[in-house]
Amino acid sequence: MTHTEESRSIAHGTTLTAIDAEAVAAVRAAAPSDDLLTLVVEAFQALADPTRARILYALVRRPLCVRDLAIVAGVSESAVSHQLRMLRDRRLVKPRRDGNVITYALDDYHVAALFREAEYHADHVRQGLPDHPHPLP
Amino acid sequence: MTHTEESRSIAHGTTLTAIDAEAVAAVRAAAPSDDLLTLVVEAFQALADPTRARILYALVRRPLCVRDLAIVAGVSESAVSHQLRMLRDRRLVKPRRDGNVITYALDDYHVAALFREAEYHADHVRQGLPDHPHPLP
Repeated sequence: MTHTEESRSIAHGTTLTAIDAEAVAAVRAAAPSDDLLTLVVEAFQALADPTRARILYALVRRPLCVRDLAIVAGVSESAVSHQLRMLRDRRLVKPRRDGNVITYALDDYHVAALFREAEYHADHVRQGLPDHPHPLP
Repeated sequence: MTHTEESRSIAHGTTLTAIDAEAVAAVRAAAPSDDLLTLVVEAFQALADPTRARILYALVRRPLCVRDLAIVAGVSESAVSHQLRMLRDRRLVKPRRDGNVITYALDDYHVAALFREAEYHADHVRQGLPDHPHPLP
């Protein structure tokens, strides 16, 4: 592992010299573009709200109308409509006509996978609770 | 599909009658507990920040010290330390001693899966951009 001064960064006016320049170069080469990072962070922001999470969890099971989503999420119909607009803008849900009723469905099956992985993480957190805070190995 | 008045909910003082009571009952039976939902939402909150996302993306590749994470994320070392504390509290990263240097590593391999799924979603968003906003089918 080489420790050169090749990798530098100007952050808040300070020049930082890499401790492990090779590692920094490797990680930078694999870093996501700003555009991709923005979309990824926006997706996590959409999921990072209890009401939106309840709505999406329900829609993982089946499409539902605004009224029924309000009952499931325990909020008003106007609150559900407001959150659905945000979720629709982020391409997480889509409306569809079902007879006289407009229901909402997941726009992207990766949403279910995101919740599944987050649940695995939650299990990891719960298993780790007795050790918390974890000492340095 | 039965449309009864069995499923009711009191939200903001209003009693809502389900449009599709069977669907509401099915979704409610499968709903996550409040504790699980809190952990899931907290995980998404931790990921829903550009600097934390850059840090975690880097750690998906390999463990790094605070200095090198600061260079990769383009922020100060104190900003990285601040974010690492939050990520450590949420059991997303863990410190380890590597000779004289303390490096940080992912505490949970599901983090990599979360970013992968979020990237799939980002692809979905990008593919859909020409149709946006999407009309009712």
